Amino acid sequence: MKELRIGMIGYGFMGKTHSNAYVQAPNFFQSEHKPVLKALCARNLEKAKPFAENWGYESIETDWRALLKRDDIDAVDICTPNNLHKEIAIEAAKAGKMILCEKPLAMNTAEGEEMVAAVEKAGVPNMVWYNYRRVPAVSLAKQILDSGKLGRIFHYRANFLQDWTINADVPQGGAATWRLDVDAAGSGVTGDLLAHCIDTALWLNGSITDVTAMTETFVKERMHAETGKKTPVEIDDACSFLCHFKNGSLGLFESTRYARGHKALYTFEINGENASIRWDLHDLHRLEYFDHADESIVRGWRSIHVSDGDQPYMGNWWVPGLQIGYEHSFTHQVADFLKSLDTGEPAHPSFRDALETQRVCDAVLTSAKKRSWENV
Amino acid sequence: MKELRIGMIGYGFMGKTHSNAYVQAPNFFQSEHKPVLKALCARNLEKAKPFAENWGYESIETDWRALLKRDDIDAVDICTPNNLHKEIAIEAAKAGKMILCEKPLAMNTAEGEEMVAAVEKAGVPNMVWYNYRRVPAVSLAKQILDSGKLGRIFHYRANFLQDWTINADVPQGGAATWRLDVDAAGSGVTGDLLAHCIDTALWLNGSITDVTAMTETFVKERMHAETGKKTPVEIDDACSFLCHFKNGSLGLFESTRYARGHKALYTFEINGENASIRWDLHDLHRLEYFDHADESIVRGWRSIHVSDGDQPYMGNWWVPGLQIGYEHSFTHQVADFLKSLDTGEPAHPSFRDALETQRVCDAVLTSAKKRSWENV
Amino acid sequence: MKELRIGMIGYGFMGKTHSNAYVQAPNFFQSEHKPVLKALCARNLEKAKPFAENWGYESIETDWRALLKRDDIDAVDICTPNNLHKEIAIEAAKAGKMILCEKPLAMNTAEGEEMVAAVEKAGVPNMVWYNYRRVPAVSLAKQILDSGKLGRIFHYRANFLQDWTINADVPQGGAATWRLDVDAAGSGVTGDLLAHCIDTALWLNGSITDVTAMTETFVKERMHAETGKKTPVEIDDACSFLCHFKNGSLGLFESTRYARGHKALYTFEINGENASIRWDLHDLHRLEYFDHADESIVRGWRSIHVSDGDQPYMGNWWVPGLQIGYEHSFTHQVADFLKSLDTGEPAHPSFRDALETQRVCDAVLTSAKKRSWENV
Amino acid sequence: MKELRIGMIGYGFMGKTHSNAYVQAPNFFQSEHKPVLKALCARNLEKAKPFAENWGYESIETDWRALLKRDDIDAVDICTPNNLHKEIAIEAAKAGKMILCEKPLAMNTAEGEEMVAAVEKAGVPNMVWYNYRRVPAVSLAKQILDSGKLGRIFHYRANFLQDWTINADVPQGGAATWRLDVDAAGSGVTGDLLAHCIDTALWLNGSITDVTAMTETFVKERMHAETGKKTPVEIDDACSFLCHFKNGSLGLFESTRYARGHKALYTFEINGENASIRWDLHDLHRLEYFDHADESIVRGWRSIHVSDGDQPYMGNWWVPGLQIGYEHSFTHQVADFLKSLDTGEPAHPSFRDALETQRVCDAVLTSAKKRSWENV
Repeated sequence: MKELRIGMIGYGFMGKTHSNAYVQAPNFFQSEHKPVLKALCARNLEKAKPFAENWGYESIETDWRALLKRDDIDAVDICTPNNLHKEIAIEAAKAGKMILCEKPLAMNTAEGEEMVAAVEKAGVPNMVWYNYRRVPAVSLAKQILDSGKLGRIFHYRANFLQDWTINADVPQGGAATWRLDVDAAGSGVTGDLLAHCIDTALWLNGSITDVTAMTETFVKERMHAETGKKTPVEIDDACSFLCHFKNGSLGLFESTRYARGHKALYTFEINGENASIRWDLHDLHRLEYFDHADESIVRGWRSIHVSDGDQPYMGNWWVPGLQIGYEHSFTHQVADFLKSLDTGEPAHPSFRDALETQRVCDAVLTSAKKRSWENV
Repeated sequence: MKELRIGMIGYGFMGKTHSNAYVQAPNFFQSEHKPVLKALCARNLEKAKPFAENWGYESIETDWRALLKRDDIDAVDICTPNNLHKEIAIEAAKAGKMILCEKPLAMNTAEGEEMVAAVEKAGVPNMVWYNYRRVPAVSLAKQILDSGKLGRIFHYRANFLQDWTINADVPQGGAATWRLDVDAAGSGVTGDLLAHCIDTALWLNGSITDVTAMTETFVKERMHAETGKKTPVEIDDACSFLCHFKNGSLGLFESTRYARGHKALYTFEINGENASIRWDLHDLHRLEYFDHADESIVRGWRSIHVSDGDQPYMGNWWVPGLQIGYEHSFTHQVADFLKSLDTGEPAHPSFRDALETQRVCDAVLTSAKKRSWENV
Repeated sequence: MKELRIGMIGYGFMGKTHSNAYVQAPNFFQSEHKPVLKALCARNLEKAKPFAENWGYESIETDWRALLKRDDIDAVDICTPNNLHKEIAIEAAKAGKMILCEKPLAMNTAEGEEMVAAVEKAGVPNMVWYNYRRVPAVSLAKQILDSGKLGRIFHYRANFLQDWTINADVPQGGAATWRLDVDAAGSGVTGDLLAHCIDTALWLNGSITDVTAMTETFVKERMHAETGKKTPVEIDDACSFLCHFKNGSLGLFESTRYARGHKALYTFEINGENASIRWDLHDLHRLEYFDHADESIVRGWRSIHVSDGDQPYMGNWWVPGLQIGYEHSFTHQVADFLKSLDTGEPAHPSFRDALETQRVCDAVLTSAKKRSWENV
Repeated sequence: MKELRIGMIGYGFMGKTHSNAYVQAPNFFQSEHKPVLKALCARNLEKAKPFAENWGYESIETDWRALLKRDDIDAVDICTPNNLHKEIAIEAAKAGKMILCEKPLAMNTAEGEEMVAAVEKAGVPNMVWYNYRRVPAVSLAKQILDSGKLGRIFHYRANFLQDWTINADVPQGGAATWRLDVDAAGSGVTGDLLAHCIDTALWLNGSITDVTAMTETFVKERMHAETGKKTPVEIDDACSFLCHFKNGSLGLFESTRYARGHKALYTFEINGENASIRWDLHDLHRLEYFDHADESIVRGWRSIHVSDGDQPYMGNWWVPGLQIGYEHSFTHQVADFLKSLDTGEPAHPSFRDALETQRVCDAVLTSAKKRSWENV
């Protein structure tokens, strides 16, 4: 058994999901590698301490550059706000560390290109946490698509709807709400939510060629959590776009944090010549499937409870009928990363994969600004 | 085109559904026979008048015996409270009239036997309005079962849940609430709601051999609408029973008017060796179907939108995706009755079919009273 | 009781829905006016005959100009392909007839403007059959919105998905498939399906100011039913667009006939500051509603079974829990038209209302062609 | 931080769920106590080894009596087949160990009484793993009921449906299928599945007073996995019963392993005067709720996505909209057991609580055998 010694940078929501995944993966998935929570890195020692103790991190660093210098760290996991991804990743690559980076890869395509160049030059294993690929129902969708059951694809539609920023008193900036601060996040729902939709779409349906987009900022000013002052909101509260895929299908994407009643509604649907698929994060253990080949009088959308041993990942969990949850998408991603180390095959989505998502995001934001179709 | 001259007795809720069905059926279903609304019969002329005018009944009678004497009436439709079914039906049979009788057939099995004897002796076409057989999704269930797709049947479960009598101020007796008055109704939910469940079950799954049942009357006294006095409630507010079917499967039935949130939830589910079916009146245009023969990774319950031209009755309506409603179950029953006149084949459920349901109801009520298993 | 003597032009699918509505409306809704099926008009006498007999039309005309000349016709109902709407409507207005015109109003905005001018000059009652407004659940949505329960609106999204033209062997042109022939239909899904979505949206959420759209024709050539020759398909098989509403909310619309598994999936969803609503034609008797004012631990989307007497139109039908179907949207539209004659208040959507939908459709098609944002 | 040193007996399906819970609970829930996986106990050392290594058990015992003698074990967790519960539990109590015992408590009431006497005499903390109480949606149901929102209760219905033994080639006996062997399991679905339904019902709705039941064994003979011989099947394949609750409400319960299409469908529904609740294990993160107090035109069943911080247990997990899974019911049970050690308040369900469930199971089996109503 080889140790994979993790240096975790950040201890927010994603720090928690990743830490849990490192602990849980080896109990459910076989690998020659086993994660060890070697060090937690955070600027504020007092705040980091209880998190480190809770999860059993063996040590704490307050400077990520110090972390990168340590010999007992094999991999760094970047869970910081987006504006720090680039610098840390490039330095980590130079230091020869494997890198697991939270999504989106970067603040923009230019940054992403530098990061890809860095990891490829260094030859270090790298991966971006687009975790929804590893929800078993989504992996099953991929398997169904790859089997050719759908035939020619006509339509791909996805949305990611939330409602947590409707209240104008929600601040921007700071630990809990940096996603509303353009300086920390780069963009609003585009990089936060649409990026997930785009990653899944590129994986399932191939490249996007051109887009036309619309963004909106419904609440124009919010108090900044760090300064206490009301300042303009510069992120996109909502973003939707139309697009063409390279395979000739049409795409429709929407994201917002102003859809009252939806907490984390991420859905996608793919319509093919012979069959269709749809999925909804709010019931992530199900996949809807329509097969035109079924006998006509008993044809209908099937609701597949993805909990059987012959469905992706599920053979490692419980028994049919018993569902898993959100956190396991991360557990699976760790398991797959460990397997990639076992086999030497690259893990996905790699930095390069994630760069493609970044390009689409940039085209979307440009299109919205210029009110024009933009090529990716 | 031959006329089928109808004498309708009663003008309540069922009078309305039947009248609409007589009007609508010939516009959507071909037959050599066409219903003509010849006479409405009701004791109270003033109340009957607007109903007759609305639906175009050509005349009004205030005495059903007078109606039976008329030469220009081919068929009588009995929409009275249950306590009048027997006498009218027997006299109508003697008068050589065809009879369409609302369900349940009678107040009890003994009455039902007399009625069956009468119509069979007279040789008149007869039918009981267990309309749910003619919901397209239910007819489709029958078709699937008859095709053998389910294999050996293990379980049949059904319930019919309402909530309209929870309020203790709802009276018993009178035009709108005779169903709560044991003298008019014979029983409570057993004859009113369970009878529907039993009729469908016998049709789909064959005979019931023995039952154990439980009834309850939650509100013990209600004002009688005709006397204004509080009198004991003697009907069953709720009734459930376990049973064996002759084919070896197990049955489970429940009915109540105290299930808050359910207006007219009639569901059934059948579990066979190879496949299962379920249906819900609240979404009557859908049938749920599970086929174990489907490829395992994409196996799931199918929600069949029963609106295609190759599904029962639907070729006569609109286009795929466009649903029909409750009233059309009656329209189909009229259409099928007319077809039975065209072909000379008896219509179903006949009085004899409905007598079997009556026997089960009686066994259920006896079992509940005696707290014992009862053979049907 | 005053007669409303109808001259019906066309006997296709819409001829059937309208005829049924004229028959059924007076049995369920009170009015001083009663429709009389006076004449059916169709070029082909042989084909028209059985339809006329079935529905009881008193006479047949084979030339619509002859129909317009008759004194015993009060209202003409235009159920022809779209390319005939304008000429008939204008002549009918000149002849002083009331006009009930199938949707979309016209082939394009220019035609629509002429038609509006004609009916307004003639002062004749006029209405366009955007029937979905009268589905009780949709009317309930309007009532909820008008009550202010939703607060500021952020998002409106709608789609209308079908799959009946995936097969490349479906022809274009002719009686059953004129909707695929640009000469008869003017456009594809935009005028046929999106027009419904737009009409509802304008009614519920007010004006649309600008759009960016994308269209696609997946099957490039189809046999023409009249010539038997393969000719280019010039309609849009699919169309989607983004837009702004005047009230500041964002819109997202999609329509296609290539969404495998969807027969007539028309859905809309509106997200407001305080509450959200959504609806689906495949279960048209339900309305989904989320109210943020609910106590937080028991807050969730409500599935409202729109079948209670206090909900729009439902007091005239059955009892709670018993659903109505697609056809009743037309019945309600007739009932409301009759009521408008009783009261003298104009019926809606009027030609002028429908012209606004036409303007949006034209902007959408222009935008798709020019790949630009277009003002409405 | 005090250690809670666990001695786990058994390493089957439940051994896995419990081990995971011991590992996960302290990372998500605060307590002064922390589980330590001290020893795994199993007869077969070779089979136990990989399990122990995977989960990090510090040692292995092959004789449970040896385990009970160890000073470094605070609590034993009994995950053996049912026929071993009694002896181990009684000895563990004598040895002063805390006991966490898998459900059902015992083979029958008589055994259960001995066990309760033993733990109460010894004064050791004790708990039975009726884990479904700790599904957040089920805990929320309890909270809603306790708040009085439902008013007088009229109905309680529950079922637990599976389909994994339809195939007659499934053996009985042995490690994977001891649940089909009456000597190891005591009963079939009654102790395995109905026991869960009954535990929840007693918790939510109070005592059951009398029952009438029906059982069936559909496959009469199965090969025994240990002997290879076909022997009669003596467990109940299916069991359903009617009952009265002490509070006057009516109960209806059903369980089977022959419901094709259902893997682990555990549902319950409670109908009260003012509100109703229902839940389904197949979508365990949702609770359906109907409140008659809602404004009538927008009244409907609410689908509550139980993932908000103010709902039971969910404040310790992720963010609203992100669901947890089956395994977390065990995690919560460990967390609550640890809290009970912190506070000194007994954990539930205790052996005494579980004995009540056993009594109902026994009455059910007796009733089915004698075809009579039985008091509990």
